[in-house]
Amino acid sequence: MVSKEMYELGAKSSVIREIFEYGKKRKAEIGAENVYDYSLGNPSVPAPEIVNETIRELTENMLSTDLHGYTSAVGDNETRKAIADDLNNRFGTAFTMNNLYMTCGAAASLCITFRALTEKDDEIIIFAPYFPEYKVFITSQGGTPVEVKCNSELQIDLEAFEKAITEKTKAVVVNSPNNPSGVVINEETVKGLCAILERKQKEYGKAIFLISDEPYRELVYGDVTVPFLTKYYKNTIVCYSYSKSLSLPGDRIGYILVPDEVSDFGLIYKAVCGAGRSLGYVCAPSMMQFVIRKCVGKTGDIAIYKKNRDILLEAFEKYGFKTAKPDGAFYLFVKSPIESATEFCETAKKYDLLLVPSDSFGFPGYVRLSYCVSTDMIIRSLPKFEELAKEYGLN
Amino acid sequence: MVSKEMYELGAKSSVIREIFEYGKKRKAEIGAENVYDYSLGNPSVPAPEIVNETIRELTENMLSTDLHGYTSAVGDNETRKAIADDLNNRFGTAFTMNNLYMTCGAAASLCITFRALTEKDDEIIIFAPYFPEYKVFITSQGGTPVEVKCNSELQIDLEAFEKAITEKTKAVVVNSPNNPSGVVINEETVKGLCAILERKQKEYGKAIFLISDEPYRELVYGDVTVPFLTKYYKNTIVCYSYSKSLSLPGDRIGYILVPDEVSDFGLIYKAVCGAGRSLGYVCAPSMMQFVIRKCVGKTGDIAIYKKNRDILLEAFEKYGFKTAKPDGAFYLFVKSPIESATEFCETAKKYDLLLVPSDSFGFPGYVRLSYCVSTDMIIRSLPKFEELAKEYGLN
Repeated sequence: MVSKEMYELGAKSSVIREIFEYGKKRKAEIGAENVYDYSLGNPSVPAPEIVNETIRELTENMLSTDLHGYTSAVGDNETRKAIADDLNNRFGTAFTMNNLYMTCGAAASLCITFRALTEKDDEIIIFAPYFPEYKVFITSQGGTPVEVKCNSELQIDLEAFEKAITEKTKAVVVNSPNNPSGVVINEETVKGLCAILERKQKEYGKAIFLISDEPYRELVYGDVTVPFLTKYYKNTIVCYSYSKSLSLPGDRIGYILVPDEVSDFGLIYKAVCGAGRSLGYVCAPSMMQFVIRKCVGKTGDIAIYKKNRDILLEAFEKYGFKTAKPDGAFYLFVKSPIESATEFCETAKKYDLLLVPSDSFGFPGYVRLSYCVSTDMIIRSLPKFEELAKEYGLN
Repeated sequence: MVSKEMYELGAKSSVIREIFEYGKKRKAEIGAENVYDYSLGNPSVPAPEIVNETIRELTENMLSTDLHGYTSAVGDNETRKAIADDLNNRFGTAFTMNNLYMTCGAAASLCITFRALTEKDDEIIIFAPYFPEYKVFITSQGGTPVEVKCNSELQIDLEAFEKAITEKTKAVVVNSPNNPSGVVINEETVKGLCAILERKQKEYGKAIFLISDEPYRELVYGDVTVPFLTKYYKNTIVCYSYSKSLSLPGDRIGYILVPDEVSDFGLIYKAVCGAGRSLGYVCAPSMMQFVIRKCVGKTGDIAIYKKNRDILLEAFEKYGFKTAKPDGAFYLFVKSPIESATEFCETAKKYDLLLVPSDSFGFPGYVRLSYCVSTDMIIRSLPKFEELAKEYGLN
């Protein structure tokens, strides 16, 4: 009657969504202030005021048929120029608008890129822990996801990576800062990764693409820098979204960056255009493109995330919880004190702490906390974490 | 290196786009006021003022993290309620929010629906003349498009339709008012179509879906009514977009309506959710969903389209051009006075009249005029049409 695959995808709600729904029910029972929901990665920081100001200005000064009209399929020229200029200023690159294709957010960027690149039997390598939708997107666009586990530091295990590359490998996806671990891939690892890719490209006589999924690029804390990957490896394609940096997840706006240096640039860029068309993306939302023209390079007040992180880190150290190196994004990846993270999350529920077990991220034994929540909630939750730690005899 | 299919889709620009690009060049040469561009179906009427007012209100009064945050994947509840109420008021139906799935516009609605329904070897019937992207969307989602030509009145040829249905037929797409012909499917034809579908469902012991693609639903002129198809046939799925009725094509907002009466409603609705997910649609643009909540049932000033149509019709009758019955949308489908519509369009170019030959709509021998242009341009173009008619010895 219908596509069985699509039905199953629609019927199977994600673990995160289930925890979120449980949280809603529990809040109704005992009051929202008594439930400590760390399940969802929804920005808690408002968009910078310039976003709403720009929207109001546009509705007052721009011709309605331009503001609400189609842009070209690849995106508005001025918007793409503004993004290229901003990247060039920050990273010393030399992009033009012709390297950019505007999209309806990160999921669209990824699906379009996978669809553009994937030929029959192609494999795409992802590193665990990973964003669970990667597997859905790769499979749906005709590829086969191949998982490589990170090492105990949650950095890429280069040896395991090299072994996973075959003649069928079309691309590798990296996500730094990482969801769910919050880890930033350090420069040494980036260099090692790129050296392996260069070697394997030669060995197999074909291009292997590095897809950098970086919606959290600007969310890093302290003096940590995120290596900008097009500078390390020619065949890099960047997938970006303004969901996190500008706190605009619902407005669905992002881009794909295909540098000139990519092998057969023209071929790839056209395939991206074709893939967008085949998936039903006519153009990225036009008014939001015009907003980005003006707001490129701005961010929400991400200092709040740093504050949240620091409070949690300090407390967790005291309570005896171990975490992955938490340099970016708004996630803490905490080692479960027992083997089963799912069981640990069930115990945490007794304290009304809602955490996500790491199994669906392909990396068992951890729990993910999204700290894009109110600082107040974090502070109120600390005694609960302390009790939880005591139950497991930590410190 | 890349998907050949996607490259070709991206590299092959549409005939309409080529004419539009030619127009841009020509305008630069001889002045925009001397080129009469009837190529693009981009609304020329501004969005009703309530749209921009609502946007400003939302940016002032709604919490940023709600306004710009994710809605649930199926869409905001209040928005879906408002749409269901509006449909019920206008059509005497009994929909609830649970029948609606919000989308990023018509192309997304169609791709998601095709993806949800299509199993291996499924055929989907489309009627020529058709919107050319139908074939792209159906093929990309795994189906096989089967074309059935309309009769000389540009109504569905029921006999040809019945013959085209096989045990592989999964769905039939209708588009009324029609792009490119402007024709509205009359009630008699709708009833005939549905009777055939009922009969064929019984014969093959399976559901055959009627997909009603109706972005032009509100754009009808005179006392013509567009039959609301869910009332004629249980297995109807409606794909809608606000691109035309509210003049918001760039903002990408629409919906899929799956009535309770559809066979295995739960299965279909879940498959729609799964298909949206697999194509990278996380949620429909949130701010635009909140705009629709308030603006549902409104339209732009479509009286302008009627005026444009009437001016052209009156003139064309005088000049001796024959057109299809032009009851809706903003297209006139004009019979080419010679066999080759492409050749006729080339001749029209000499008068700087830019028309689209009907070959890419699967129905040779006509040209499409989009009259969603300024009335002024239409009036200025009339002497050119008169000269063109004389060149062919019409009247």
